[in-house]
Amino acid sequence: MSEIDLKKYKIRTDLIIESIDNNCSSIVEQDEKKIDDIIINNTTVKENIDNLGKKKGSYITISFKDVTDTTNRKKLEDIVTHELILMMKKLNIDKDSKALVIGLGNYKSTPDSLGPKILNDLVITRHLFLLEDVKIEKGYRNVAGFIPGVMGNTGIEARDVISGIIKEIKPDFLIVVDALASSSIERVNKTIQMTDTGINPGSGVGNSRMEISHDTIGIPVIAIGIPTVVDAVTIVSDTIKYLFKKFSYNLAHINKASQKLKPVNNINYLKEEYQDLSMDDKEKILGFLGNLSEDEIHQLMFEVLSPIGYNLMVTPKEVDFLVDRLALVLATSINRSLHPKMNV
Amino acid sequence: MSEIDLKKYKIRTDLIIESIDNNCSSIVEQDEKKIDDIIINNTTVKENIDNLGKKKGSYITISFKDVTDTTNRKKLEDIVTHELILMMKKLNIDKDSKALVIGLGNYKSTPDSLGPKILNDLVITRHLFLLEDVKIEKGYRNVAGFIPGVMGNTGIEARDVISGIIKEIKPDFLIVVDALASSSIERVNKTIQMTDTGINPGSGVGNSRMEISHDTIGIPVIAIGIPTVVDAVTIVSDTIKYLFKKFSYNLAHINKASQKLKPVNNINYLKEEYQDLSMDDKEKILGFLGNLSEDEIHQLMFEVLSPIGYNLMVTPKEVDFLVDRLALVLATSINRSLHPKMNV
Amino acid sequence: MSEIDLKKYKIRTDLIIESIDNNCSSIVEQDEKKIDDIIINNTTVKENIDNLGKKKGSYITISFKDVTDTTNRKKLEDIVTHELILMMKKLNIDKDSKALVIGLGNYKSTPDSLGPKILNDLVITRHLFLLEDVKIEKGYRNVAGFIPGVMGNTGIEARDVISGIIKEIKPDFLIVVDALASSSIERVNKTIQMTDTGINPGSGVGNSRMEISHDTIGIPVIAIGIPTVVDAVTIVSDTIKYLFKKFSYNLAHINKASQKLKPVNNINYLKEEYQDLSMDDKEKILGFLGNLSEDEIHQLMFEVLSPIGYNLMVTPKEVDFLVDRLALVLATSINRSLHPKMNV
Amino acid sequence: MSEIDLKKYKIRTDLIIESIDNNCSSIVEQDEKKIDDIIINNTTVKENIDNLGKKKGSYITISFKDVTDTTNRKKLEDIVTHELILMMKKLNIDKDSKALVIGLGNYKSTPDSLGPKILNDLVITRHLFLLEDVKIEKGYRNVAGFIPGVMGNTGIEARDVISGIIKEIKPDFLIVVDALASSSIERVNKTIQMTDTGINPGSGVGNSRMEISHDTIGIPVIAIGIPTVVDAVTIVSDTIKYLFKKFSYNLAHINKASQKLKPVNNINYLKEEYQDLSMDDKEKILGFLGNLSEDEIHQLMFEVLSPIGYNLMVTPKEVDFLVDRLALVLATSINRSLHPKMNV
Repeated sequence: MSEIDLKKYKIRTDLIIESIDNNCSSIVEQDEKKIDDIIINNTTVKENIDNLGKKKGSYITISFKDVTDTTNRKKLEDIVTHELILMMKKLNIDKDSKALVIGLGNYKSTPDSLGPKILNDLVITRHLFLLEDVKIEKGYRNVAGFIPGVMGNTGIEARDVISGIIKEIKPDFLIVVDALASSSIERVNKTIQMTDTGINPGSGVGNSRMEISHDTIGIPVIAIGIPTVVDAVTIVSDTIKYLFKKFSYNLAHINKASQKLKPVNNINYLKEEYQDLSMDDKEKILGFLGNLSEDEIHQLMFEVLSPIGYNLMVTPKEVDFLVDRLALVLATSINRSLHPKMNV
Repeated sequence: MSEIDLKKYKIRTDLIIESIDNNCSSIVEQDEKKIDDIIINNTTVKENIDNLGKKKGSYITISFKDVTDTTNRKKLEDIVTHELILMMKKLNIDKDSKALVIGLGNYKSTPDSLGPKILNDLVITRHLFLLEDVKIEKGYRNVAGFIPGVMGNTGIEARDVISGIIKEIKPDFLIVVDALASSSIERVNKTIQMTDTGINPGSGVGNSRMEISHDTIGIPVIAIGIPTVVDAVTIVSDTIKYLFKKFSYNLAHINKASQKLKPVNNINYLKEEYQDLSMDDKEKILGFLGNLSEDEIHQLMFEVLSPIGYNLMVTPKEVDFLVDRLALVLATSINRSLHPKMNV
Repeated sequence: MSEIDLKKYKIRTDLIIESIDNNCSSIVEQDEKKIDDIIINNTTVKENIDNLGKKKGSYITISFKDVTDTTNRKKLEDIVTHELILMMKKLNIDKDSKALVIGLGNYKSTPDSLGPKILNDLVITRHLFLLEDVKIEKGYRNVAGFIPGVMGNTGIEARDVISGIIKEIKPDFLIVVDALASSSIERVNKTIQMTDTGINPGSGVGNSRMEISHDTIGIPVIAIGIPTVVDAVTIVSDTIKYLFKKFSYNLAHINKASQKLKPVNNINYLKEEYQDLSMDDKEKILGFLGNLSEDEIHQLMFEVLSPIGYNLMVTPKEVDFLVDRLALVLATSINRSLHPKMNV
Repeated sequence: MSEIDLKKYKIRTDLIIESIDNNCSSIVEQDEKKIDDIIINNTTVKENIDNLGKKKGSYITISFKDVTDTTNRKKLEDIVTHELILMMKKLNIDKDSKALVIGLGNYKSTPDSLGPKILNDLVITRHLFLLEDVKIEKGYRNVAGFIPGVMGNTGIEARDVISGIIKEIKPDFLIVVDALASSSIERVNKTIQMTDTGINPGSGVGNSRMEISHDTIGIPVIAIGIPTVVDAVTIVSDTIKYLFKKFSYNLAHINKASQKLKPVNNINYLKEEYQDLSMDDKEKILGFLGNLSEDEIHQLMFEVLSPIGYNLMVTPKEVDFLVDRLALVLATSINRSLHPKMNV
């Protein structure tokens, strides 16, 4: 199966930390720090990685555990605000630069409504700057915000809408918020990615692909995303990975030979270091499948699911509650980053 | 009070049939027909009437009584569809012309959500025409749709959004739907106005004024609107008008002299031909106010209400129900007009 | 006009401070304090006042100026929380008492959506208390929340829904939130009323009247409301009141005799102490109307407006924005009052 | 693995046609007819089947292909209306019986919003029947409607809400609409199930299980549901089933021995009769997994997925569009069934 077209069947993810691997080490620099149980990964990609669809630039990945608790949420907002201000500095965005914040996605579809929901809590000021007789308090920036909608509802590519508006109102930089796809259910609703490399609207939940970036739009673009879905192929492939982990755990912990290959309901199997199974064991457990690489399994599952309707997404059941909370975290952090007066 | 700036204090209406009067007769042609209890007024304005803010062009005003009943709604849809097709013909819009339908207004504010609600039921096809491998069934037009939002939420003038999108996707004509303001509560939710002269977004519920018309946008614009609100000054001025009607009725019907000036709760007073009161009677009833013209009363009420917050709107309580029904009437009629296949 | 049925035509208000007057002084005790520019009025009604439809009990009225500013909002939340905790103490509601919070009104109608919107931000815990294996953190109370909807959509009286649910889940007390009607546009969105006397759902925006109170439900009821509308009759009557104020101001400030009765656009007229006009002046200005009492003017306007559709409400145009903010203020204050853990 | 607790790990479905198999034939009667490409399956269960959680009674399952096309939708509405009227007749519900229609589910979560969305288009009349001075047109039934919400938002079991309301308003029968779970992605948004056996709210998307049926509520209950999700375990188990189908197809169609076990992207593999693979082939392909029964695979996947968060649901990406259309189909059919006047 050497002929697999990796680009076509590649694991579906918008997250840099799921895309890069050891082969990339020469062109990628990574740095990680931890504040309480929030991990901040800072990845610099030094050259475009075409086969992964990842562009040269800076990626901040913030991993967290919980946003239902107010204290945790406040901590997360502090970190997102801090990283966003840093990124704006690196891009030479000064306090008088005019911002346009774009909420991508479909407000009618819960997991895809993250972007549009941001607009509810954003402090918009551009129209006040247009008024001659209104004096804006110091510490507030010129900020506009917009929801371009999705092609299925408007018939128009989000990028065309954005491009048209930019030409009319001429902002100095763009912040684009979107729901993303992850290749791992463990990251869903638990990761914020921020990058200066731009975004492909719809590469997450939707379909169309038209890059919005400094290259295509002509002004700096900060893209902020949170994975809210995985696709169905991913969940199946993931499960097979976990199947090996589970059996590896069983082999290590269950002495009675006859029990070794039996499934055992043990929630601890994921917490332990995974001992890679021998090819022999793998084949015993999963036969032909045991011989395939992760990419090959992914391709196979893609082929199996295609004819029965590939167009599926997987979300946690409480996605409505989580998306509300996460939209508020992002809106608050963006407000604090854009308006110094609000960051006190 | 000869110094009244009529443009500033003028009665607030977006409806042509409330704007024109006998003084306009030389430059206005009117024609009226009736189908059951639906009245279709066809007004042609031959020159711009600057002091009324009304432009040269064609205005269709459809007055109806009820949209809660399915039969009435169907009848109304037939008429709106017919008039819309006629107007498209007059503007030389052929079956291959690409449409962009714009829903103006604020979807979060019930009376102003008419435009955005249209999009829910519009048949959008432009994205299908973009696909190479999809063959569109004959009888469907290339249609895109968009909600530009309101300045208070986006910081951007609706016209700038529309203008930007038009430059990107280059439609052949525009249909713009908006909630309007009427100067009479009797017309609220009971009138559909359609014109080829364009629209000032926000002249209804909102505030900003930037014309969207063939002159400013470069392509034909059909504006469709329904009054869903009157402003507070209007309701007060209206009431004073009705006060005179009521007393006029009393004077004519109540014989006992001592009762003539007493208010009597009689719901018939509006059904009768109004006998204009003598100046003397008017002054007896309303003193100083009795001497003022309608415009002067309007200006006075504007002045009285300004400092306590002029920014008020008046709507029927069941506006949520009515706006839903009316949005469906317009969406259905627009679909049938744009897609011949749907008009059977 | 001595035959006016005051109950039928009475000025439409749900606010105690707009209902009571000097005649009530023997059965009403009032106390007022001011924190910055927020006024807290504490009214105790010692006997039922049937002709006003006001019941014996305690009423807290909090008047404020602005909730768009974060600092002001925080201050207001502190005060509402404090007063709510005090009222719960007076009603002997202890920390283990189970609460049911009801959001009255129509979530589809912007000014009437205050109650339903509360539920979005309420911390609901009752279902966690039902779980055997979940240990609730100390400082959280057993709280359920419910939106009974409006009769036009459900066909069921809100009170029947509430009554049915209370019998099933047996809460120890009720908090009911509703949008109210005020008789003054100056109070709209700027007053919070809190009372232990219960509520008539729909006496604000809707229509039906069925009391929810300790008497009818059998458990303590705290009703919290904010006026978000005035009715059309009120705005007209109000305007006539303001008309007198305006002319009173003119008479006092304009020396040239010929100018005295002219309207002058001066926004200061409301800030000054109002010098009651003489009956003679009143009649000069408003003729017959000048001789009527406030109640009589109100009745007259009611009669004039009735046949043209009395069913109108008046709201500020930015009501969507304000209701969102006010719902958050109430939800936050209710959360802090109910869950001691959240009040730090 | 004989010790599998089938009830605990059983395949998650609310559909009768996915629950029953050959073992049930003695207590189940089935009948199927086809109108164009809509299949109507009529299943009578003669005794409670406890291990499947299915109750004695009548189940109608309507399978269809498409609701985006207006003609298809109309056809489907005719069939649903017809079957609903038949079921009402069988339950001796006469034209004067009072109906209560319940929309179960979470209106904030797209796939779970089917029930609440019904209420938007339902013709509610109960409040009109309560008015003394309103005469209801013949052909309209007394209908109330209600959205009880979900426990996560209200803290109250849907059944407690329903039970409370029934005691207050005493309807003669219940129609309950809910989103369901299917064990097959092919049925999602393409099946309507109607039954007189009642419903367990939340057995679909949510969690709590409290039966609403004639037994528990005391009046006839017609439950109508549409599967809008499958769970993650199902999609994984399904994929393994399809894997065997795919290899079976390959074995039959690919001659070159070396190619036989290779995956081939062929969308035809599902259309063909599936030749069951030999145990030997199964083991070759999937090793240990090849020896497991469907139920055992399901249990295994349940165990693998549990620790990484079992709480996942799988939906088509266009679920927002489909749920809107399906809610309208059900609302229209229910209106026509309840109000004879509307069924013409």
